[in-house]
Amino acid sequence: MTKRVYNFYPGPATLPLPALKKAQEELLDYKGTGMSIMELSHRSKQYDAMHKEASGLVRGLMGIPDDYKILWLQGGASTQFFMVPCNLAVKGKPMEYVNTGAWSKKAIKEAKFYGDVNVVASSEDKNFSYIPKDIKFSNNASYAHITGNNTIFGTEFHTWPNVPKDVPLICDMSSNIMDKVIDVKKFGVIYAGAQKNIGPAGVTLVVVREDLLNIVPENTPTMQKWKIHAEKDSLFNTCPCWAIYMCKLCLEHLKNIGGVPAIEKINRKKAKIIYDIIDDSNGFYKGHATPDSRSLMNITFNLPTPELEAKCVEEGQKRELIGLKGHRSVGGMRASLYNAMTLEGVETLGEFLREFKEENE
Amino acid sequence: MTKRVYNFYPGPATLPLPALKKAQEELLDYKGTGMSIMELSHRSKQYDAMHKEASGLVRGLMGIPDDYKILWLQGGASTQFFMVPCNLAVKGKPMEYVNTGAWSKKAIKEAKFYGDVNVVASSEDKNFSYIPKDIKFSNNASYAHITGNNTIFGTEFHTWPNVPKDVPLICDMSSNIMDKVIDVKKFGVIYAGAQKNIGPAGVTLVVVREDLLNIVPENTPTMQKWKIHAEKDSLFNTCPCWAIYMCKLCLEHLKNIGGVPAIEKINRKKAKIIYDIIDDSNGFYKGHATPDSRSLMNITFNLPTPELEAKCVEEGQKRELIGLKGHRSVGGMRASLYNAMTLEGVETLGEFLREFKEENE
Repeated sequence: MTKRVYNFYPGPATLPLPALKKAQEELLDYKGTGMSIMELSHRSKQYDAMHKEASGLVRGLMGIPDDYKILWLQGGASTQFFMVPCNLAVKGKPMEYVNTGAWSKKAIKEAKFYGDVNVVASSEDKNFSYIPKDIKFSNNASYAHITGNNTIFGTEFHTWPNVPKDVPLICDMSSNIMDKVIDVKKFGVIYAGAQKNIGPAGVTLVVVREDLLNIVPENTPTMQKWKIHAEKDSLFNTCPCWAIYMCKLCLEHLKNIGGVPAIEKINRKKAKIIYDIIDDSNGFYKGHATPDSRSLMNITFNLPTPELEAKCVEEGQKRELIGLKGHRSVGGMRASLYNAMTLEGVETLGEFLREFKEENE
Repeated sequence: MTKRVYNFYPGPATLPLPALKKAQEELLDYKGTGMSIMELSHRSKQYDAMHKEASGLVRGLMGIPDDYKILWLQGGASTQFFMVPCNLAVKGKPMEYVNTGAWSKKAIKEAKFYGDVNVVASSEDKNFSYIPKDIKFSNNASYAHITGNNTIFGTEFHTWPNVPKDVPLICDMSSNIMDKVIDVKKFGVIYAGAQKNIGPAGVTLVVVREDLLNIVPENTPTMQKWKIHAEKDSLFNTCPCWAIYMCKLCLEHLKNIGGVPAIEKINRKKAKIIYDIIDDSNGFYKGHATPDSRSLMNITFNLPTPELEAKCVEEGQKRELIGLKGHRSVGGMRASLYNAMTLEGVETLGEFLREFKEENE
């Protein structure tokens, strides 16, 4: 039998087993074509049907209105960090950002190449352990940018900040896209590297409201314009066919288990298991995020000493609970409970953490 | 038994069967990790070992000297069309291009966003049926750019143009990388979308001489700088892990069969089979490229009428010879004989073309 472990990596991360099995099954012969999906021309009718299916699944699962385009791009969220200002910055109107951690900072850094940036709120004062409240964006901002979930610090936006009329809200949802039901209409642009919650590394989902496609200056290199990719249904050039195909298989699985409302319920249950253990541990496990800002996706916590933290990671590994070491900015441990992490996996982690506490406190 | 056809698509294209089988075999459990290679963190030691192996294979197979960096980037050659000028344009020094077809034109278009461009030679006068001779680049050019092989028109550089001392030669080798032995030292930068000759879509190989990494202006967005990717061994952000892994498997196969010298011999034999049929057909098959510019990779030819061309494509398809329709810029037919196309596949195509001629001339 194939060995499988529980994989808590922050991304690339665990994928749904049925999606992997399907990919394995049809790897040499995609739907009787006698070719792998990797070998099919991106201009072939079989590839095109798959491509459209993938986009249709995104639209259906997220309830994306017709006036939004769905793009499959390359380069990760790191590329969108410059494509957002490149496509949306308007001279004389500042770009406004909320700084909730390392990824926000990187986004802010790239925006500065394109004009004036205001950081309107930040949680840096407390090592990004919370999501700022009462965020105010200016009326004349080019756009308002937030990081939906902070993988490193384990915080997540649970309500969306208000934005002035005509200021589009832009959200990096790389680590929490489809983790819960959202109202897409609140956003101008949503972008997400696929490798945490919807598929493998190598493709970036961008959902953009059509009226925002025409702000980009004419003298911008072609590949940097969302507009071009929107007009060509992400087939202006050769798209990352396999990564899109894997997203399709993962999203098909999500649809089969009841879609985003169903996974939201499971995600809340999964997160509660671990947060309850933290809260009931008399301080043995200490959560990094303040309770109202806690992420459903990445649970960050410390143990009494770095030695115990290292021991816990190591013993976890022996029990086939992989990828629990925290990021150096927070230290300690991090359990990433993305959509593809099963309830069973989280229960196994929970048992382990309870036992580890008993044996080591 | 799994159905497999002969796939002559221009890219994404056929891949070596042993590479696909290996990928299938370890899809659910990569080397006993209990995870797919798609699920491994790009910061894990297992992924890192694979990543270094892939780069090592490129270096070994192409004989790349130590003062060149090997980058695995995203966005295809289309992204390099702007990254080349972005990283190499020097104010007051024109960027110089040879125009040998559609891909050269696209590269030229993007360079114009970064400064003055000279097109120093072109074969547009004869619908790109030849590679210009006696190409002269200026002494003060920022760089000299050529398209190594022209997928659409079926022409290929067989000798490299001379460039003045201190002018780096840049080559888009997307459709002929590793098709024959080359002297990498002649080039400043070589770039190639993987999906034709070395792997699947979703990753772009860039080989760049170290001294060229420091020309890029400081105020350039981070992801656009080769330098950053070089410093971080292409792990500045999450890399397209699966696509790099597939390249590794394909290159391993290439190494196993004797490397580039061996595949060059096979490629010359494969191309000769089809070109001989064209030349011996008394004009039934008419090659688009002039004989001295003929591509080893993409063979473009026409039949006496568009009706016969359509019939030939259709009958080929019935014999499981897929992807033979030519690009609209040339019409007719195109057989792409990349490294992964077997001699057996080309012999089968050859037999079919001989029979088709006998039955239809």
